[in-house]
Amino acid sequence: MQDLTSVGIVTSKSVHFDTPLHLKSSAIIDSYELVYETYGELNATKSNSILICHALSSNHHVAGFYADDPQNIGWWNNMIGPGKPIDTRKFFVVGVNNVGGCHGSTGPVSINAKTGRLYGSDFPVVTVQDWVKTQVRLADHLGIKQFAAIAGGSLGGMQALQWALDYPDRVRHVLVIAASAKLTAQNIAFNDVARQAIMTDPDFYGGDYCSHDVVPHRGLRLARMLGHITYLSDDSMAEKFGRELRNGALGFGFDVEFEIESYLRYQGDKFADQFDANTYLLMTKALDYFDPAHDYDGDLKKAFSVAQANFLVLSFTTDWRFSPERSRTIVKALLDNELNVSYAEITSSYGHDSFLMEDRHYHELVRAYMNNINI
Amino acid sequence: MQDLTSVGIVTSKSVHFDTPLHLKSSAIIDSYELVYETYGELNATKSNSILICHALSSNHHVAGFYADDPQNIGWWNNMIGPGKPIDTRKFFVVGVNNVGGCHGSTGPVSINAKTGRLYGSDFPVVTVQDWVKTQVRLADHLGIKQFAAIAGGSLGGMQALQWALDYPDRVRHVLVIAASAKLTAQNIAFNDVARQAIMTDPDFYGGDYCSHDVVPHRGLRLARMLGHITYLSDDSMAEKFGRELRNGALGFGFDVEFEIESYLRYQGDKFADQFDANTYLLMTKALDYFDPAHDYDGDLKKAFSVAQANFLVLSFTTDWRFSPERSRTIVKALLDNELNVSYAEITSSYGHDSFLMEDRHYHELVRAYMNNINI
Repeated sequence: MQDLTSVGIVTSKSVHFDTPLHLKSSAIIDSYELVYETYGELNATKSNSILICHALSSNHHVAGFYADDPQNIGWWNNMIGPGKPIDTRKFFVVGVNNVGGCHGSTGPVSINAKTGRLYGSDFPVVTVQDWVKTQVRLADHLGIKQFAAIAGGSLGGMQALQWALDYPDRVRHVLVIAASAKLTAQNIAFNDVARQAIMTDPDFYGGDYCSHDVVPHRGLRLARMLGHITYLSDDSMAEKFGRELRNGALGFGFDVEFEIESYLRYQGDKFADQFDANTYLLMTKALDYFDPAHDYDGDLKKAFSVAQANFLVLSFTTDWRFSPERSRTIVKALLDNELNVSYAEITSSYGHDSFLMEDRHYHELVRAYMNNINI
Repeated sequence: MQDLTSVGIVTSKSVHFDTPLHLKSSAIIDSYELVYETYGELNATKSNSILICHALSSNHHVAGFYADDPQNIGWWNNMIGPGKPIDTRKFFVVGVNNVGGCHGSTGPVSINAKTGRLYGSDFPVVTVQDWVKTQVRLADHLGIKQFAAIAGGSLGGMQALQWALDYPDRVRHVLVIAASAKLTAQNIAFNDVARQAIMTDPDFYGGDYCSHDVVPHRGLRLARMLGHITYLSDDSMAEKFGRELRNGALGFGFDVEFEIESYLRYQGDKFADQFDANTYLLMTKALDYFDPAHDYDGDLKKAFSVAQANFLVLSFTTDWRFSPERSRTIVKALLDNELNVSYAEITSSYGHDSFLMEDRHYHELVRAYMNNINI
């Protein structure tokens, strides 16, 4: 039966930019592609557009599915569609894959026009600010002067926040979900273990594994297993897996024994089969570097002083990667600037991954906020 | 200047056991060595002995230092010595390296008498219960019928607890510090990522790396880096390292940038240079398997019904590996059995590692408890 709340079959589009992209690192990308998807219709005054920014491992495929791959459903499909919290009958929604990614936009698995070879490890380190720059160009390409809203969870929420700081006149509402104004030492530590797992994999070859016809599967698998632990809550893991044994009894060996081991290894393998290791490194680095207060002596209030947008900030009680406390820090700094902020701490057992889940309270809050946006 | 509260120069001793050790796995170790150290003097009635059980990566060298290696100070030197909380003027203290270890007791780096070759990956999986069995034999060898107290932190605390269940008439007081009655799914998950890091290292060779003249340094290093994150608290990492950059500015590359990265990689390298990978695997498995309630339909009260000892249970506020809640679960089950329990939740910022730290409140509590023990 047809799902009437799905945007249905979608197709990815691509746009090529020839204007050089000056990165924060001072490196320059001469030209690049961005792949994106859109759902709903841009209205006549072009006032109803929403940009969705993606997190570490996702991409531009935010909602709907592909005609030739109907199982490949967008990562925020429960949030976006006709009648859904971000309603495509009202809004024109844009999803984009960031540069450095591995799903179509220019990144390590793209050909470097300068050398005629894959970028691989030559792809420069990109930051949240760099991504926002490219997203502005995509907006220009689509004729969007100002987004009604920009939304994202986790690393995506950081991009939404960065828009409000770098292009305050180009976004009216910002939805920052399960995010943080900066990573802690512990966050960075987890990222570094993941990076070291990849970079010390003998199949990494300094990032040039493609030219050796291998991929650092072991390292990427470990990185994902570790990441996954930090996305889930202690409670949800306990509830879902507990100490259940796969074969009912202890095996006194090192094969899979507990269900949680089976789950994590499976998730790790699946991810390592489809994601690019250099992209993983770049994404974690963008997370580590994000720190808008850094140029203001650590004063987040000052950093936010240029913002003009209205904000919805959401956090989840069991998120220990970016705890509610981090969202509160953002909210306080926004309030210190007399900005219009809605905030909610949502009771959820799913940890950091809650932002991807279909939770009634969460979705009602987003729906109410989005309904209230004038277009 | 001489430290009058140190036990001073110590020497390790070794004892060989020819009576086969029947393991929980049903494997049998025909004969084995235990290395141990003792501090203080056993009194005439042999009523003043204390057994110290070690955690994942430590060993029998609990206090003092070696004449030929004065920098090698015992891991609980701040706790044990003349005038210290566990006072060697009153008590005779025994530290032992568990079988499966890599510091002298029979383990993967020992010669298997049956084959004439290193055990390596042939060394059987050992459990907390197995270790307690061997510790009983050591007690017999030393002529100790009953320990005044058995103490340990983390995995060491689990051994102390197991004594009270398996040999209730051979221990009067049990000190269970920063421990848990069982691991959660999240704990097991972290252990499994560590194991997978080791076992997928190409230099692991299915555990027989020694015969290939290599060690799985990469995997062991990652395992330790990851472990280290879980030993520290988010707060202590933030306080010690924050977002400090090693060279003052972002490098836009993948070398060490943040101080926390430098610290973790250093800790990982140091550990991988000196610890055995197979032992690491065994120790994590012993942790995963520990679950005294398992044979009693998950009822910890029933599991503890045979215990007779008095208990001191201590937890630390910022320990997220084995949180205070886990200690409270132990305390409740002990109280349900009308046992004499002292419990304290100690305010400390050092996370799980707090049990190794010299904290005034912590040490005063242990001192008070130990002073009160009649010998």
